[in-house]
Amino acid sequence: MQFNTLILATLTASVLIQSVFADEPIQPITPAKSINAAQAELGKKLYFDPRLSKSGFISCNSCHNLSMGGTDNLTTSIGHNWQQGPINSPTVLNASMNIAQFWDGRAADLKAQAGGPIANPKEMAFTHELAVEVLASIPQYVAEFKQVFGTEKVTIDEVTQAIAEFEKTLVTPNSRFDQWLLGKKDALSADEQAGYKLFKESGCVACHNGAAVGGSSFQKMGLVEPYKTDNPAEGRKAVTGKDADRFFFKVPTLRNVELTYPYFHDGAAKTLTEAVDTMGRLQLGKKFTAEENAKVVAFLKTLTGEQPSFLIPILPPSGDKTLHPQPFNEK
Amino acid sequence: MQFNTLILATLTASVLIQSVFADEPIQPITPAKSINAAQAELGKKLYFDPRLSKSGFISCNSCHNLSMGGTDNLTTSIGHNWQQGPINSPTVLNASMNIAQFWDGRAADLKAQAGGPIANPKEMAFTHELAVEVLASIPQYVAEFKQVFGTEKVTIDEVTQAIAEFEKTLVTPNSRFDQWLLGKKDALSADEQAGYKLFKESGCVACHNGAAVGGSSFQKMGLVEPYKTDNPAEGRKAVTGKDADRFFFKVPTLRNVELTYPYFHDGAAKTLTEAVDTMGRLQLGKKFTAEENAKVVAFLKTLTGEQPSFLIPILPPSGDKTLHPQPFNEK
Ligand code: HEC
Ligand code: HEC
Ligand code: HEC
Ligand code: HEC
Ligand SMILES: [Ca+2]
Ligand SMILES: [Ca+2]
Repeated sequence: MQFNTLILATLTASVLIQSVFADEPIQPITPAKSINAAQAELGKKLYFDPRLSKSGFISCNSCHNLSMGGTDNLTTSIGHNWQQGPINSPTVLNASMNIAQFWDGRAADLKAQAGGPIANPKEMAFTHELAVEVLASIPQYVAEFKQVFGTEKVTIDEVTQAIAEFEKTLVTPNSRFDQWLLGKKDALSADEQAGYKLFKESGCVACHNGAAVGGSSFQKMGLVEPYKTDNPAEGRKAVTGKDADRFFFKVPTLRNVELTYPYFHDGAAKTLTEAVDTMGRLQLGKKFTAEENAKVVAFLKTLTGEQPSFLIPILPPSGDKTLHPQPFNEK
Repeated sequence: MQFNTLILATLTASVLIQSVFADEPIQPITPAKSINAAQAELGKKLYFDPRLSKSGFISCNSCHNLSMGGTDNLTTSIGHNWQQGPINSPTVLNASMNIAQFWDGRAADLKAQAGGPIANPKEMAFTHELAVEVLASIPQYVAEFKQVFGTEKVTIDEVTQAIAEFEKTLVTPNSRFDQWLLGKKDALSADEQAGYKLFKESGCVACHNGAAVGGSSFQKMGLVEPYKTDNPAEGRKAVTGKDADRFFFKVPTLRNVELTYPYFHDGAAKTLTEAVDTMGRLQLGKKFTAEENAKVVAFLKTLTGEQPSFLIPILPPSGDKTLHPQPFNEK
C-alpha cells in the first residue's frame, strides 16, 4: 500500500514537472541513478591515481580536472614527457549522456573509453598490463578490488568498469537554467531569458538539445561556411572512413560551458563570445549583434550546474615491490 | 563563570593527558589552532590552482599531492616542461612544525617558502607579477581576496599568506601511535611497541623527536659512515656558506613516513626497510637484524595520522581577459 502510494506520488510529481518543460528542447539534468557506489568509490581513487601512468605524475584528473569543469582549460593537453596533445580535452562532466565518447565518437561508452588514455603514448604512456601489475602490488587496492568485484585478480576490465562507474556520478544538476525550467521563474534574468529565446529561435537547438544540450549527434563543423584550422583532426571520417563524414564532430554538451574554455576541438576559440559568434556564422549563416551575442553568452552561463562535491580521495600507498614510476628514462 | 570553568577543565585535561607521555621523546600532534578560516579556504583554492604556473598545468598539489601524503612519490619532481627536479619533494603535511622550510632550511617559514615554487623556472616557471595578474583577472578571486583581506588589489603577499594559512591546516593528528601515547594501550601491537623501544634505545630519537618526530634541527647525513650519492645538493652549506655544514639536512618529520616514499633528499631509498637500515648504519653505526628492522618499520607505520579531509575545491573560471597558459612556447 505504502509502496503504491509512493509510486503514485512519484508519477504524479514527474508528470507535473515534465509538463512544465514538455515543449522545451532542453530538459533538466536528473542526478545519476543506479550507481554501484562501491565501484564508483574505487573508480574515484583510480581517476585520481597517477600510478596509472608511466611517469607516476599524470592521472585522469590531470587533463579532466574536477576542480576546473572536468577539463584542463588548455588549447590541447599536456601528456607524458610534456608532449603536446592533438586535440582539446572535452569535459567528463555529464559525459555519460553522450551518444559516444571522443570528438569522433570512436569509443562506444565510458568503459570502452577509459582504457584508452592509460595506454596512449601521448597521454599516460603506460600499458594495461603494467597498470594492472602496479595495482595488484598495492595491498589496499587488492583488498578493495576483491571487496567490490569479488575476485582475487585485478583486471583491466575491472579498472575501466570502476572508473566508468565513477564518471557516471559526474552529473551537474540544479543549474539556474534547470531551476527555471522546473518553474522557478526568477531564476533567470530578463537578458538570460532573451538569450535562451535567441538560442532557440536562431536554430542552435537543432544540434544542442536534450538534457545535455548537445552530445547526442555528430554534426559538420562549418556547415554554412567552412571552418579554418591548422588542426589535422578529421572528425567522424576517422571512424567511418567516409569522405562525407570529414569534419563531423560530436556536438559538445553545453552544460558547464562557462568552465570548459577554450572551445572547439582545436581549442581555438578562447572565449564564449568568440565561440557563439563562430557558431552563428558557420553553422547558421547568422551574424549576431554584440548585444545578441552577449545575451546568448549570458544564457549559456546559466547552464553551470552543481559541480561534483566529494572529499579528496586518499590513495593507498605503494607496496615495497610496486614498480617505480619512470618519468625520465627516455629523455 | 562558565568561561572560568571551561579554562579549568581544559587545563586539568591537558595536565592529565600530558602526564601520560611526559617522559616520552615524542608528543602527540595537536590539531591546528588559531587558523584564519577564510584565508585558509582561499589558500586551498590557490594550492590547487595550476594557473599559478606558466603552463597552466602544475599546481602545488602536483608535487605535494594531498591524496598521496603531501608528496609526489617520485625520486625527484617533474617540473615545467618535464624538467627533472634537483631533490626529493618533502611532504607539506605537518610542515608548519618545521624549524624552517626546504631540506637546507633556506626559507624561514611557510609564507616565505610559498613564493619560491611559483617563480622557480624548474617548478612552476611563472613570475609573481604574472601570477598576480592572472588572479586579478578572475572576478571571483578578486571578490574573495577583497572579502578575506579587505583590499582592492591582489598582492603576492596575500597569495603566499593564504597558501601558508591553508598549509597550517595540514596536520595529521590521531595516528595509532598518538592514541597509544594518550593511553590507549592496545592501539599498538607488541611488535610495534618493540619497534618504538628500538627506535628510542638505538638513538633515533636524538634527531627524530618532538610532535613531528623530526623537523626541529639540521643534522649531518652520514654522521658515522659517509653517505654516497650522485645528487649534488650540499645541504645547509648552501645557506651558511660554511664547509662544516656540508651535508647537513633538515631532519625530516617521520609523521606519515609510510606515505612519503622514496626517502632521503635524493629519493634514493625506495622502501622504509632500506631507509631504516641506512639510518642505523650511517647515523648510529648500528646494523639492525632483519627482525629488528621489521619492528622499527612496523612502528614507523603507526605514525600515519588522519589525512587532510576536505571537499575538492572548485576553482573560479578565468575571465575573458585572463592571460592564457603557455605550455609549449619554448620547445
Ligand atoms: C594527457 C591528457 C589526458 C589524460 C591523462 C586523460 N585524458 Fe581523457 N581525453 C583527453 C583528450 C585530449 C580527449 C579527446 C580525445 C579525442 O576526442 O580524440 C579525451 C577524451 C576523454 C573522454 C571523452 C569525452 C567526450 O565527451 O568525448 C572521456 C570520458 C575521458 N577522456 C576520460 C578520461 C579518463 C577516465 C582518463 C584516465 C583513465 C583520461 N580521460 C585521461 C585528454 C586526456
Ligand atoms: C549544425 C549543428 C550545430 C548548430 C546549428 C550549432 N552548433 Fe554549436 N557546435 C556544433 C559542433 C559540431 C560543435 C563542435 C565543433 C568543433 O569543436 O569543431 C559545436 C560547438 C559549440 C560550442 C563550443 C563547445 C565546446 O565545449 O567546445 C558552443 C559554445 C556552441 N557550439 C554554441 C552554439 C550556438 C550558440 C549555436 C547557435 C548560434 C550553435 N552552437 C549552433 C554543432 C552545432
Ligand atoms: C615541480 C614540483 C613542485 C611544485 C610545483 C611545488 N613544490 Fe614545493 N617542493 C618541491 C621540492 C622538490 C621541494 C624541496 C626543495 C628543497 O628543499 O630544496 C619543495 C619544498 C616545499 C616545502 C618545504 C617542506 C619542507 O619540509 O622543507 C613546502 C612547504 C612546499 N614545497 C610547498 C609548496 C607550495 C605551497 C607550492 C605551490 C605554491 C609548491 N610547494 C610547489 C617541489 C615542488
Ligand atoms: C644524527 C641524526 C639522525 C639520527 C641519529 C637518525 N636520523 Fe633519520 N634522518 C636524519 C637526517 C638528517 C635525515 C635526512 C637525510 C637525507 O635526506 O639525506 C634522516 C632521514 C630519515 C628517514 C627518511 C625520511 C624521509 O622522509 O626521507 C627515515 C625513515 C629515518 N631518518 C629514520 C631513522 C631511524 C629509524 C633512525 C635510527 C636508526 C634514525 N633515522 C636516526 C637524521 C638522523
Ligand atoms: Ca574545451
Ligand atoms: Ca620522500
